[in-house]
Amino acid sequence: MLEDKNPQKTSIDQLGEFGLIDHLTKNFQIKHASTIKGIGDDAAVLNFGTNKMVVSTDFLIEGVHFDLAYMPLKHLGYKAVTVNLSDICAMNAKPTQITVSIAVSNRFPLEAIEELYEGIALAAEIYKIDIIGGDTTSSQKGLLLSITAIGEAKEEEIVYRNGAKATDLLVVSGDIGSAYMGLQVLEREKQVFQVNPNNQPDLENYTYLIERQLKPEARTDIKELLEKLEVKPTAMIDISDGLSSEIIHLCKQSEVGCNLYEEKLPLDPQLITVCEEFKIDSTTIAINGGEDYELLFTIPIDDFSKIKGNPNLTVIGHMVNKKEGIHLITRANEAIELKSLGWNSFTK
Amino acid sequence: MLEDKNPQKTSIDQLGEFGLIDHLTKNFQIKHASTIKGIGDDAAVLNFGTNKMVVSTDFLIEGVHFDLAYMPLKHLGYKAVTVNLSDICAMNAKPTQITVSIAVSNRFPLEAIEELYEGIALAAEIYKIDIIGGDTTSSQKGLLLSITAIGEAKEEEIVYRNGAKATDLLVVSGDIGSAYMGLQVLEREKQVFQVNPNNQPDLENYTYLIERQLKPEARTDIKELLEKLEVKPTAMIDISDGLSSEIIHLCKQSEVGCNLYEEKLPLDPQLITVCEEFKIDSTTIAINGGEDYELLFTIPIDDFSKIKGNPNLTVIGHMVNKKEGIHLITRANEAIELKSLGWNSFTK
Repeated sequence: MLEDKNPQKTSIDQLGEFGLIDHLTKNFQIKHASTIKGIGDDAAVLNFGTNKMVVSTDFLIEGVHFDLAYMPLKHLGYKAVTVNLSDICAMNAKPTQITVSIAVSNRFPLEAIEELYEGIALAAEIYKIDIIGGDTTSSQKGLLLSITAIGEAKEEEIVYRNGAKATDLLVVSGDIGSAYMGLQVLEREKQVFQVNPNNQPDLENYTYLIERQLKPEARTDIKELLEKLEVKPTAMIDISDGLSSEIIHLCKQSEVGCNLYEEKLPLDPQLITVCEEFKIDSTTIAINGGEDYELLFTIPIDDFSKIKGNPNLTVIGHMVNKKEGIHLITRANEAIELKSLGWNSFTK
Repeated sequence: MLEDKNPQKTSIDQLGEFGLIDHLTKNFQIKHASTIKGIGDDAAVLNFGTNKMVVSTDFLIEGVHFDLAYMPLKHLGYKAVTVNLSDICAMNAKPTQITVSIAVSNRFPLEAIEELYEGIALAAEIYKIDIIGGDTTSSQKGLLLSITAIGEAKEEEIVYRNGAKATDLLVVSGDIGSAYMGLQVLEREKQVFQVNPNNQPDLENYTYLIERQLKPEARTDIKELLEKLEVKPTAMIDISDGLSSEIIHLCKQSEVGCNLYEEKLPLDPQLITVCEEFKIDSTTIAINGGEDYELLFTIPIDDFSKIKGNPNLTVIGHMVNKKEGIHLITRANEAIELKSLGWNSFTK
């Protein structure tokens, strides 16, 4: 077992709710001119001038969305922020502020909450986000996080899910499937540990997959990249529930169909190796796995030359007329209807 | 026992997360021009033009903030919205939008969530609020609500906690203490019911107190009232944790002291009667009870004539220099130091 480097445990009761908020947020600095008033009043005050404001919110619940058996609290805090920022990026907006609400049962000492907040603060630092408010309370069971992310964009920059045209190309940032396989690796190690707690896991061959699961990044870089390339997406969504599920969302809202090409799916070499080891089809993982937090978007076919060869972007298919349906075209050139097998917390 | 008018119970699993959101939100109408895009994309899009935006968020957790033994789900939904709107009112802003995140364990059928949403929708209707997004997920235990409220105001209208001057008057809207006594009545009835489930409670003498606890209203009317009276508060806060706790917040942030007069406290006659029945001092309840969701604010002493005699507003004290401290002046003209005994979820 690892030595506990911080054997001091402080009960949260000693600080109380206001003391805890003060303690956790006292070092936060305001980074945006749009933040007129952050933490410390009944509400925060923001000013976006002529820009539009974009807002999104997510719940993260222990035992449903994360497992503290292999999710370090600092990573959890970091991930809780990035998954929310990802929604702002999916509107082609720039994330600027978040509110952070935390509920914890009394099994968590102050030091655990501090660790969680370290991850939150790190993400706020890296992504230049102001933490402008929130709530801190006790829970009956486990750790619960609710984050609301706010962003800004010029009206003409905002990209919805419903603008894809039947001739557009379908593009994804980064690579996909790795976060889901990272979770499979961690689940396996948890089971090994339960059988033999003295077993030291060797995770060297899985580092990329595990990092994709435990410390995903929000693609705040894509908005700027597309501006430089002079490409404006016609529709955009982020990949939280799995590629197939997100493609179906885009198609439904844009009233188009889609051909997705198996051979075009951007897979990391480590994903392919580990899928072989687990005897799982990597295409199935790439299509139905989730939590990649990459951006999926459509662009006019005329813009192909502008993004061609860019290492951050891969054309994985093209939109078609609605009546043609939504299909995966396999390497064997078979068309298989895409169905949503995305993650559903109610049937997990 | 009452007859179950709706014996059909539908499992949430059947709908899935997206189906549930669609089902619950399909009838919501957009009421504000500032809501460019509500539910249905990665994020909502808002436009406040030259106005400032105000944002606040709250967690409501079963077993910590509410008890479903006496809190009907529809009331819970209504209250969850109003307590958040109250924070926006406390900035002297106008509430315009909310996001609603709900997590439920599988003990809740769809019909229960529908009832909860009925209350949310009713509050949105009455207060003319757009529901622009949220999250719906499963929980490991109980029902959890996280609401973020958004409002707008002109920059010069916004009132912070830190503007009170040492000569200002301290004013409260409505009456205080009743919500807390309503909770005491409900707790007593719960215990009676546990001993004898056939006992039919007679709550006729407690209707006002119970309504203040189960269905509090947000004072969205006060902003308009003060405008008409041509009074601009110098500092403002809402009473969620108890009068003493909120006075201390105002004093600390404004760097002033305060004299609060026991004889001026606005108490409902029902509160006084029930406090006698429970053998509790009504001043203690008025000062340390919480959840009144009234507005507490300071005004320049020269504005006294403008608010004098208004049935919605009561002058309960005046601010003094910081070094004079924060005191309750009793009917016997004793000065007792005010201490915060407000509600703390961690030591409940």
